[in-house]
Amino acid sequence: MKLVVDLKERSYPIILERGCTEHLGDYLDVNRKSFVISDEGVPEVWKQRILSQLNDAVFMVVEQGEDAKSFEVYQKCLKEMLKHNFHRKDQVIALGGGVVGDLSGFVAASYMRGIDFIQIPTTTLSQIDSSIGGKVAINVDHVKNCVGAFWQPKLVLIDPDTLSTLPKRHVVSGLIEALKAGCIQDEELFRIFEEEEIEENLEEILVRSLKIKKHVVEEDETEQGLRKILNYGHTIGHAIESCEMPKYYHGEAVGLGMLMICENEEIRQRILNCLIKLGAPVDYQLNANQLIKYLVKDKKASNVSTSIITVSKIGEAKIETRTFEQMHELLKRRESE
Amino acid sequence: MKLVVDLKERSYPIILERGCTEHLGDYLDVNRKSFVISDEGVPEVWKQRILSQLNDAVFMVVEQGEDAKSFEVYQKCLKEMLKHNFHRKDQVIALGGGVVGDLSGFVAASYMRGIDFIQIPTTTLSQIDSSIGGKVAINVDHVKNCVGAFWQPKLVLIDPDTLSTLPKRHVVSGLIEALKAGCIQDEELFRIFEEEEIEENLEEILVRSLKIKKHVVEEDETEQGLRKILNYGHTIGHAIESCEMPKYYHGEAVGLGMLMICENEEIRQRILNCLIKLGAPVDYQLNANQLIKYLVKDKKASNVSTSIITVSKIGEAKIETRTFEQMHELLKRRESE
Repeated sequence: MKLVVDLKERSYPIILERGCTEHLGDYLDVNRKSFVISDEGVPEVWKQRILSQLNDAVFMVVEQGEDAKSFEVYQKCLKEMLKHNFHRKDQVIALGGGVVGDLSGFVAASYMRGIDFIQIPTTTLSQIDSSIGGKVAINVDHVKNCVGAFWQPKLVLIDPDTLSTLPKRHVVSGLIEALKAGCIQDEELFRIFEEEEIEENLEEILVRSLKIKKHVVEEDETEQGLRKILNYGHTIGHAIESCEMPKYYHGEAVGLGMLMICENEEIRQRILNCLIKLGAPVDYQLNANQLIKYLVKDKKASNVSTSIITVSKIGEAKIETRTFEQMHELLKRRESE
Repeated sequence: MKLVVDLKERSYPIILERGCTEHLGDYLDVNRKSFVISDEGVPEVWKQRILSQLNDAVFMVVEQGEDAKSFEVYQKCLKEMLKHNFHRKDQVIALGGGVVGDLSGFVAASYMRGIDFIQIPTTTLSQIDSSIGGKVAINVDHVKNCVGAFWQPKLVLIDPDTLSTLPKRHVVSGLIEALKAGCIQDEELFRIFEEEEIEENLEEILVRSLKIKKHVVEEDETEQGLRKILNYGHTIGHAIESCEMPKYYHGEAVGLGMLMICENEEIRQRILNCLIKLGAPVDYQLNANQLIKYLVKDKKASNVSTSIITVSKIGEAKIETRTFEQMHELLKRRESE
């Protein structure tokens, strides 16, 4: 299946096809000089598959996990590219999950003021969500994604076969972003999580999530308005993730974030049931005074308030503003529950 | 005088007016939270003038010279902004020359994936050239501007009064970019350098240079084609600057670069005369084997060739391609002259 993210001169195709990574030449120029970034967690089989088809590639493997989204690793990638004389017409390929995509994307966005970038996501999180839409970034001082760019890929190549080697916990973490997508835009997607066998419906879940992401990004590429709805559960989720790093995976923290922010008890219960069904963590003893410190540094915040997403009917989201006082009160309430 | 750089949703005004920095409130919101970056070389009088008018500013002074365009200083700026809880709706103001503008611009381009940016250039180089057009960058491993972005300012505020405190050598360095602008696009501007009192015509030189820059940037914002002509003298100039760092100022190196690349003897002699009239360095004993190493890493290069700009009639430039072999030969010839 092919979807096109329509962003005028920055448009690009998303290919979703079992086995598509076996014939790269159908989708990209295998003779173009490529800087391939992957991490230690990506199984050799996928690395070999990609590298064996590229005729002029330099390969870099970074450590697994959020620590790779650091200034140090970012710099190391850029220096390696310089050492190998990469130029404007060459490209960066991200092979891995969200961390690899975010890091590689910022490398591509800034090297020589921006070169082409291809995403080959290998996790549910990146296939469902993070490889689409051009948000790339690194972390600084434990503040998530606070340095980066909007830099759209030229191609996203999604091969669900790569999920076969993904540890269960990673699979679940990514699916929570799909659950979020259902909450904000797609009642039917949410219903699948509630009522169906999730594993059997994996491709349907992928497709539905991608379509939501595509639609939202097309409407609001640089998150001036609508795109903020994708951040449902993320305001508190990011704070939990940063504060507890590296305890929770991104999706897990987003799941907890949805539980914290949702003030409609019926919906909250339904989200909770889905998270339990997925086997995601749902018990989190929060510390309101600690979390609020991270909220203040969030990109969605101003000096006195932050924007949050609310869902009072599955499939429909609203963007609202809360003062830090209001957020602190909410967190205090959750703390004592 | 007000010029508008027309780049659709990224359009912005350039204000050129003696004393405009005395009433900032006429041009920008002085109550907006601002991160002001300047360097040790900018006289206190201008720093005080700007800061005294801003009601919510954090001030950062970086070292003077190209060394400030480093990863270390870039990181320091970002961390300082985080520490002071800067958000997406706040802004970065660059007060200084080309180095401060390039560094600040990349900080603004990447902080929270991009926030507003205002240029208040205080040198001829930055008033004539570098503050316009959105090319921002830092240096890595002595390779100039190899990490950065295209990030347009929201406003450029040019106060020629600030040039009154600028050391002569800096004034001259900047004027060489104007001389270059004359070479590639404006015979009359070149004539002023050849035949008139330069100091008396400073504002005319500024205006003519800005108009050329505006026109070229509007036609080709991200340097896919035409904008490359602004790089006349820069391919070899950058190599000299990087190789000899910190011996030559940017404009000085560009002047030497024009002398090296120009193969039309009559024009070369006329450029040489202008540089001598300006008091710019014109004697440079180059080392071809050394310089070629820097050329290979230039952004304008590919794996086998680089693009250069040639001028065979004053006011008209062409973009041409040279293999590294051809460039090496040319440098060898210059070495033995």
